[in-house]
Amino acid sequence: MSPAPSVSYSITIRLEFAAHSAAVSDITGRIEEHRALVTALDVSASGPERMRADLTVLTADNDHAMEVVDALRDIPGVELGKVSDRTFLAHLGGKLTVESKVPIRHRDDLSMVYTPGVARVVKAIAEHPEDARSLTIKRNTVAVVSDGSAILGLGDLGPLAAMPVMEGKAALFKRFADIDAFPICLDAHSVEEIVSHVKAIAPVFAGINLEDISAPRCFEIEDRLRKELDIPVFHDDQHGTAIVVVAALRNALRVVGKEIEKVRIVLSGAGAAGTAILRLLRAAGARDVVVTDIDGIVHEGRENLEGRLPWIAEVTNPRGLTGTLSDAIQGADVFIGVSAGNILSAQDVESMAERSIVFAMANPTPEIDPAEAAKHAEVVATGRSDFANQINNVLAFPGVFRGLLDARATNVTDRMLLAASKALADVVTADELNPTYIVPSVFNEGVTKAVASAVEHVAREEAGTVDTITGAIPAVYAEQIHL
Amino acid sequence: MSPAPSVSYSITIRLEFAAHSAAVSDITGRIEEHRALVTALDVSASGPERMRADLTVLTADNDHAMEVVDALRDIPGVELGKVSDRTFLAHLGGKLTVESKVPIRHRDDLSMVYTPGVARVVKAIAEHPEDARSLTIKRNTVAVVSDGSAILGLGDLGPLAAMPVMEGKAALFKRFADIDAFPICLDAHSVEEIVSHVKAIAPVFAGINLEDISAPRCFEIEDRLRKELDIPVFHDDQHGTAIVVVAALRNALRVVGKEIEKVRIVLSGAGAAGTAILRLLRAAGARDVVVTDIDGIVHEGRENLEGRLPWIAEVTNPRGLTGTLSDAIQGADVFIGVSAGNILSAQDVESMAERSIVFAMANPTPEIDPAEAAKHAEVVATGRSDFANQINNVLAFPGVFRGLLDARATNVTDRMLLAASKALADVVTADELNPTYIVPSVFNEGVTKAVASAVEHVAREEAGTVDTITGAIPAVYAEQIHL
Repeated sequence: MSPAPSVSYSITIRLEFAAHSAAVSDITGRIEEHRALVTALDVSASGPERMRADLTVLTADNDHAMEVVDALRDIPGVELGKVSDRTFLAHLGGKLTVESKVPIRHRDDLSMVYTPGVARVVKAIAEHPEDARSLTIKRNTVAVVSDGSAILGLGDLGPLAAMPVMEGKAALFKRFADIDAFPICLDAHSVEEIVSHVKAIAPVFAGINLEDISAPRCFEIEDRLRKELDIPVFHDDQHGTAIVVVAALRNALRVVGKEIEKVRIVLSGAGAAGTAILRLLRAAGARDVVVTDIDGIVHEGRENLEGRLPWIAEVTNPRGLTGTLSDAIQGADVFIGVSAGNILSAQDVESMAERSIVFAMANPTPEIDPAEAAKHAEVVATGRSDFANQINNVLAFPGVFRGLLDARATNVTDRMLLAASKALADVVTADELNPTYIVPSVFNEGVTKAVASAVEHVAREEAGTVDTITGAIPAVYAEQIHL
Repeated sequence: MSPAPSVSYSITIRLEFAAHSAAVSDITGRIEEHRALVTALDVSASGPERMRADLTVLTADNDHAMEVVDALRDIPGVELGKVSDRTFLAHLGGKLTVESKVPIRHRDDLSMVYTPGVARVVKAIAEHPEDARSLTIKRNTVAVVSDGSAILGLGDLGPLAAMPVMEGKAALFKRFADIDAFPICLDAHSVEEIVSHVKAIAPVFAGINLEDISAPRCFEIEDRLRKELDIPVFHDDQHGTAIVVVAALRNALRVVGKEIEKVRIVLSGAGAAGTAILRLLRAAGARDVVVTDIDGIVHEGRENLEGRLPWIAEVTNPRGLTGTLSDAIQGADVFIGVSAGNILSAQDVESMAERSIVFAMANPTPEIDPAEAAKHAEVVATGRSDFANQINNVLAFPGVFRGLLDARATNVTDRMLLAASKALADVVTADELNPTYIVPSVFNEGVTKAVASAVEHVAREEAGTVDTITGAIPAVYAEQIHL
């Protein structure tokens, strides 16, 4: 089965052609013959005999795009101009800019935002380091840190290749939570090095978002940084995913009328995402979780349990199952997959309990074709944007960090993650809830607000703080200025 | 002598007062009595009996500001409202934002700038790492790196306190050269650590601007990074200062009709700036330079020469002078001070050659009061904005980096610095040149352009490159797209 045409492979083709009545339909017809999709035709010049237009076409991949371009070239009377790849065009020159918030129009401005005036602000922060949160960008700035060792599903491609993803993430931080995020792509490899570099740059930031760092290093890096830094550290591949999965599960269970404390859950995948999902499921009340990996069911009698597997064996599998995924899934109410494509069969889903739930989130190919799963399961979700119920981290991380920053949080706790997850689930109202709508759209404006507010509330509770801003302003003004 | 009122200590005071004809003059008169300066009076509300206004006042320092506020409080019928400090207000929340250049309006946008579309760009960079310069922010992004060990003239105040300066620097990069610069304030101390951290973050950047790192560590850090990185590394406190000093000297020598090869130059200060100035003076053709430091004239017979001093002793002082600054300066044509306040006497300047030049750049107190120096010297310059001929690094670093980035330079060479210096000097035309105008204003729009173009030209010559952009776009499109 070849992939469907998508905007990820959309091209814009400049064409000139004879101005006769059938010209456009000749062109669009030819494109349809090749199973591509025309999404726009913009005429940019027209004369009595010739027309010029920019045609935007969705294709399935590079080869398909070439095929479409060649097919158009063959139409008599059609001349091809520039062909542009919209995804690459969107990336030209990078996706971020750093802008000055202060006007620098004349010498007086210079004297305030730079020397000599800035020296006063420097001295104020040296005396009261906590005022860096008022007087510098630290207050609203997050580092998006990666070593490029596990970029998307593509493997270890290094820090330069990680840049487009980290820039994209920063763009999403801005778009969805008005956070200033900056990509830090590290040319470093060991846990020790990465921890050391992140600690060194931490003064600039109010939070660290780890991204696309391979397991098991990501666990130790996060653990170490959480202990050694006084700002929150959040590995999105773990906790962002966990928040959205547990939110989606909460709503899916509402749909099928079951309770998290009573269901049997099979979790396929014991990597970064799987481990975090397990942790949050337990925090949310799940009691019967069976984890499977490439070697089958994780249980205490299995040989060579390493890394987090001994812990997983200890806290899961209360009925002491052994065997394969197929053995685990019989009678289960919920399947959560963050593992590999096509490892779940229709028979497996059929063997689940009545009104079952299947989250098949392996990317780009899900654990089971969602259409197949839907024949037997009542609620199906994937990580893909072309099916219902997309489990998308964009639903979580912007709001989580907004809340952390607003609370001036110094750490992230499971209670915060759980609150975020619950808040996200509750964005879907009882009226809206149905088997194909268990998570809100990422463009739903209530999402960031709800998640942020939940996280901020817990963070303030745990810190025992009220909302105060200490005065970085010299004492004489501090009383009088309302910051 | 108390400092003069300046915008660095300007406050805005909200006042309410009786609406009678002498009210405003009572207020402004009282402020003048206290030697502060009123720069604006904005009436924000007026009624038949009372007025409300915001009064902006320049004061000399915090105590002076308090004195002014107290004096106003004493005027009968005047009520004081909020007092705000304009410099601190300009810093609230920090001076930079990170913005997304790409719109994220709907799912199609998301699919192009983030997953799944971004995966194609990732793969393209993994295959052709040099294309990171086309497809990511690397192309136009500079790190402003400091450990806060020598912030302005304030000493080692650490990375948090360095933030306002580095943010200000980044704001200047944007304002004067349209460069995206980001502050990297490092919680690190040793040369080894700083080199390691900067190398680790280098993938994100096309250039490194080192700032406010104490000598002698700054020398080794710069040397190491220049050797170990494939992007240009520039320590602004050294080379930025050197470029502007040598440009100013070039023009000052034009004014007094002397040649750099023939003049006797005394350079006071053997720290980061002094060393870099010496290097560039030599590259510019200076042959008779005598360097002095806190122990007097640097000469080969002096005991305990450490760090760069042996090198300085070797390449300077051709007439083998010994003794103090006063000994060195007799008969000299040029004094360049990057040392300490009030170390040069009027008698010293009087002992110089006819038509002498004095650059007294110690901050905030120059080596000699410029008014005193001007009694005997024909051209006087300082680092201060309240005298003529301000030697200001803002004249150099934006253009230097613009040129480096445009040339995709991999290093910085003395030839580039010299070309920058010459180009900067030449911005002042023969018609404009006079003893009080040897450097252009930082707001002169020709400055960045001239410096950038000179640096870019040399960088391209040295690299032997022509202006090509390699195709990150898949082959099928690369031929057809004009990037």
